[in-house]
Amino acid sequence: MADIAARTEKEAEKENGKDGAIGVTTGPIRGSKKIHVAAQTGSGIRVAMREIYLEGGEDPVRVYDTSGPYTDENAQIDISKGLPELRKDWILARGDVEYVDQREIKPEDNGQLGPDRSGGVDPFPNVREKVLRAKAGKNVSQMHYARQGIITPEMEYVAERENLGRARLAEYNRSGESFGASIPDYVTPEFVRDEIARGRAIIPNNINHPESEPMAIGRNFLVKINANIGNSAVASDVAAEVDKMVWSIRWGGDTVMDLSTGRNIHDTREWIIRNSPVPIGTVPIYQALEKVGGVAEDLTWEIFRDTLIEQAEQGVDYFTIHAGVRLPYVPMAAKRVTGIVSRGGSIMAKWCLAHHKESFLYEHFDDITEIMKAYDIAYSLGDGLRPGSIADANDEAQFSELYTLGELTHRAWKSDVQVMIEGPGHVPMHKIKENMEKQLEVCGEAPFYTLGPLTTDIAPGYDHITSGIGAAQIGWYGTAMLCYVTPKEHLGLPDRDDVKVGVVTYKLAAHAADLAKGHPAAQVRDDALSKARFEFRWRDQFNLSLDPDTAEEYHDQTLPAEGAKTAHFCSMCGPKFCSMKISQEVREFAGKQNQSAEGFLASEKLGSETAEASRQAAEAGMKEMSAKYKDMGERLYLPADEVK
Amino acid sequence: MADIAARTEKEAEKENGKDGAIGVTTGPIRGSKKIHVAAQTGSGIRVAMREIYLEGGEDPVRVYDTSGPYTDENAQIDISKGLPELRKDWILARGDVEYVDQREIKPEDNGQLGPDRSGGVDPFPNVREKVLRAKAGKNVSQMHYARQGIITPEMEYVAERENLGRARLAEYNRSGESFGASIPDYVTPEFVRDEIARGRAIIPNNINHPESEPMAIGRNFLVKINANIGNSAVASDVAAEVDKMVWSIRWGGDTVMDLSTGRNIHDTREWIIRNSPVPIGTVPIYQALEKVGGVAEDLTWEIFRDTLIEQAEQGVDYFTIHAGVRLPYVPMAAKRVTGIVSRGGSIMAKWCLAHHKESFLYEHFDDITEIMKAYDIAYSLGDGLRPGSIADANDEAQFSELYTLGELTHRAWKSDVQVMIEGPGHVPMHKIKENMEKQLEVCGEAPFYTLGPLTTDIAPGYDHITSGIGAAQIGWYGTAMLCYVTPKEHLGLPDRDDVKVGVVTYKLAAHAADLAKGHPAAQVRDDALSKARFEFRWRDQFNLSLDPDTAEEYHDQTLPAEGAKTAHFCSMCGPKFCSMKISQEVREFAGKQNQSAEGFLASEKLGSETAEASRQAAEAGMKEMSAKYKDMGERLYLPADEVK
Repeated sequence: MADIAARTEKEAEKENGKDGAIGVTTGPIRGSKKIHVAAQTGSGIRVAMREIYLEGGEDPVRVYDTSGPYTDENAQIDISKGLPELRKDWILARGDVEYVDQREIKPEDNGQLGPDRSGGVDPFPNVREKVLRAKAGKNVSQMHYARQGIITPEMEYVAERENLGRARLAEYNRSGESFGASIPDYVTPEFVRDEIARGRAIIPNNINHPESEPMAIGRNFLVKINANIGNSAVASDVAAEVDKMVWSIRWGGDTVMDLSTGRNIHDTREWIIRNSPVPIGTVPIYQALEKVGGVAEDLTWEIFRDTLIEQAEQGVDYFTIHAGVRLPYVPMAAKRVTGIVSRGGSIMAKWCLAHHKESFLYEHFDDITEIMKAYDIAYSLGDGLRPGSIADANDEAQFSELYTLGELTHRAWKSDVQVMIEGPGHVPMHKIKENMEKQLEVCGEAPFYTLGPLTTDIAPGYDHITSGIGAAQIGWYGTAMLCYVTPKEHLGLPDRDDVKVGVVTYKLAAHAADLAKGHPAAQVRDDALSKARFEFRWRDQFNLSLDPDTAEEYHDQTLPAEGAKTAHFCSMCGPKFCSMKISQEVREFAGKQNQSAEGFLASEKLGSETAEASRQAAEAGMKEMSAKYKDMGERLYLPADEVK
Repeated sequence: MADIAARTEKEAEKENGKDGAIGVTTGPIRGSKKIHVAAQTGSGIRVAMREIYLEGGEDPVRVYDTSGPYTDENAQIDISKGLPELRKDWILARGDVEYVDQREIKPEDNGQLGPDRSGGVDPFPNVREKVLRAKAGKNVSQMHYARQGIITPEMEYVAERENLGRARLAEYNRSGESFGASIPDYVTPEFVRDEIARGRAIIPNNINHPESEPMAIGRNFLVKINANIGNSAVASDVAAEVDKMVWSIRWGGDTVMDLSTGRNIHDTREWIIRNSPVPIGTVPIYQALEKVGGVAEDLTWEIFRDTLIEQAEQGVDYFTIHAGVRLPYVPMAAKRVTGIVSRGGSIMAKWCLAHHKESFLYEHFDDITEIMKAYDIAYSLGDGLRPGSIADANDEAQFSELYTLGELTHRAWKSDVQVMIEGPGHVPMHKIKENMEKQLEVCGEAPFYTLGPLTTDIAPGYDHITSGIGAAQIGWYGTAMLCYVTPKEHLGLPDRDDVKVGVVTYKLAAHAADLAKGHPAAQVRDDALSKARFEFRWRDQFNLSLDPDTAEEYHDQTLPAEGAKTAHFCSMCGPKFCSMKISQEVREFAGKQNQSAEGFLASEKLGSETAEASRQAAEAGMKEMSAKYKDMGERLYLPADEVK
């Protein structure tokens, strides 16, 4: 694991291309700096954000930041030590947890049942021997605290974090159509508590993952995105997965799911969690299946339960549990064009069919809940029967499962355990809204967490886009978190570039949703970027964008000269045809004339019925204006000292 | 121009990378063949389509094809001769046109006023000396014929072309939300005629562009896309532009706009039109501005009129005319965050302001209409005041212009001239629908032709995606044609790769819209691809996709072996975890047991209220099934000869 090491962005970029060595990328994102803002409550909590600095005396723009210490120029990054434990004291201070011996690591945790195909992975050097667990009879979930009326530091952190840019609110009129969401003008810790208590939002943060920076997933907060990483038996290795985690949060991943299915699952996950400032999700059935040599029928509740404990102790923040794939639904899916496309769903379907028994996940749901509440792990109730093609969208199998997920949501809530619901999949645009509406109704507004949805099946290689279209829409309708799709979807395992493209695509889709929902702070960044564009502040335009490097690279392909960064045109139109430049001249000219919009309107009547009389009056006024323009040397762009 | 030559796809790909030589790409798109289908009317008209051939005894899939003779393996392509004149006889047979001497080419047509920066372009060798024009008093527009009750060969061609795949209709249930569109189950020539007569669709085809294959733009037809090409003073050359035209229609561009603004505009356009099987659009004010040395104030109606004639005689199929940028609206735009972002709009605004006069385009609108009807050029009424940022969306300037465009639409229709309306721009999702609704109302359902819209400003470098999201939505709501945006938007001039990404992105957005509108034939391709995916027919999956080359390339990055093309898994999950594979086994097992969905359902009651009694009954049934499974050797995937 010597090749996992912190390097600066430049160095990492250099290394990555070459001899297969992979370093995690550190250092600030260009044009910006990591800042820590003290919570307004005065509690001493300091919330990480990013500030983008602009030219021309413009105020810096604060943006939501998921990248953790990796973009902090003052942070010391040591991958083999892991990140600082931000939440440790908060967790211990509540007095409801105790240290227990960590469950012993077994060979099968890393899939060492047969020949090891991955070449072996060093264990994380800094594994704790003691881990936290709720004291007997205690429930350590944020939902439990919220329902007791307790505002935790985690809730405070979230409130400050979500408020980003709202200080500027006075300048903006809120507009948007939120489809029944209740987005407040200003997020208070009490608002966060109330949303958690109602089950309308979750803060996924296992007590054994104190490195995480609290974040909320809920329809009344900013729309979040998840990035999937994970090796498979065919490709990928641990170093690459840790790098992908850091890389994906650099560009905006709010949570990361480790979907590893090959060998060394346990050790890979330890490296990832110890170095992750964002919540980590997993699908425990993947590892359980490895433990039984890949034979779905051999899965048992005992093996699954043991896997949950193993992962709970490592610090996984949310578990995808496919407890809604019930035996009676399996034949419904068999009739489909693409059957069952969820891995977890197909494993459970096979198990149910082979034993002709109800799913052990469904049968043992309350037992699972007991584990969840002892570590504060959130449920991500998996949609094992999601449609895998346009043809199968919104069918009987899918909605039958959704109803069961609704039933399970309410059952988990009885134990104060946090829940979100996974959603499709492949859905044509006109069927998307029904998904959202049914989910809100059946699952009592528990956060929806959707994959895409993909709005057509005919563009493999571009499924980040077919799904980005659906994601923006369902985010607008109320989905709280969007699971990214990369260009490699359906074709292969995403590499570093694919991860970035997937993250940026979903970040823009989530942002488009925030704008459309009328999130009060969302438009600040758009406006700052558009203003920079209009004023030809090219560097600001790059730095304000979701991917400054790509923006500048594209610009430089046609106008590489450093001078072009301040040029009043771009290569699209060339200097003479630049509409922005002409438009600025128009504005300046109008301004210099003290000519208001009303003045212009008065001199010319609108509509085609303009009477000859008013035409003549207008004509006279126009001639006067024209003469004035000529007097001023026919220049539209006047130096400041000539303004009268 | 020696470097403009026809080469096979492979050769062209090879050449393009290397020494700057550019050849147009010819040869069939992989896995498919160009076919010519006889119109059902028996008139002898043969309509070009593409047929994708599948493995495993599956029927071939017919798809709409915009690529012209370039993908026909039997076609002889000679760029210096131009394409065959498909429509020539149809045009002459109507007896309402006459040959006239072509207007003499002047040096300023190619911008030879000052030093020539582009290095000179050979004139197209095969320029006609005589061009067509309507006989005195005649109107040769398709709308004029339609209103006389005449079904032209062009309308017949369109009907056959749009029907693609509808023969399979019986298999499909139509679903969708069309927002008031009237998409028929089957398109007849009479339906096309009626749509043209009403102004609800246009067939842009100048009588001097007989090389074009007729296509319709209207909300009751398939959603179309436009690709922009064109050189600017800074980059690009003629050879590259001809290549981009051929390249963009290869991937699905339905029309192409030549937005050249540099020198040699006339000759560049001649090369493009003579080799284009799709309608070509232009913005004549760009060339007019070149003729007056780039000084907007020096533009006159006479110069503009002469430019219209020049381009009409060359065969431009639709003109963007910014006649809605009226003097009183200019100050409204001056108040904006990003002012005027349309080049044509800013030129006209500057002219209006400098002269303090009403726009000569508005004043001379009826004179322009007289020219349009003598060649059958369609209006594309430009939205010179479209918003250039989220902040400016749906503002007073934008909608004031739209009302004027509505007025002008009805004025053009009085002369039976075809019209479409250009639309925004930058619009957040919640404001998109208002654009469509207002346009339909004000412009009497004339086809809407929108740029994007971009749903956020913060992702330069990814604006094909920010706009693809908006494009899919507005296409669903009723937009007839979507103007593509490439990844280089706002940053630079698109190269060949950008053109392809832009076209494919918009093709998938248009297709997502067709699916959501409930277009009867749209889902055929999705279903074929999804079936191929489920059955691991990898090659079919590639060939059915919008971009087979990229799909295969991505696949090969992780599983390059030829054997992997038929493997029953992909690298995403590996062989053991493949949900599709497990799902197939589930299906087979269920099938082999003669177990219907109803059978399963009967053995297990749905819902959480299952009574203990029915549980026990179910339990017995399950044990029986489980025993049966064991009897059969615990295999889920049984050979055909063992099926009982």
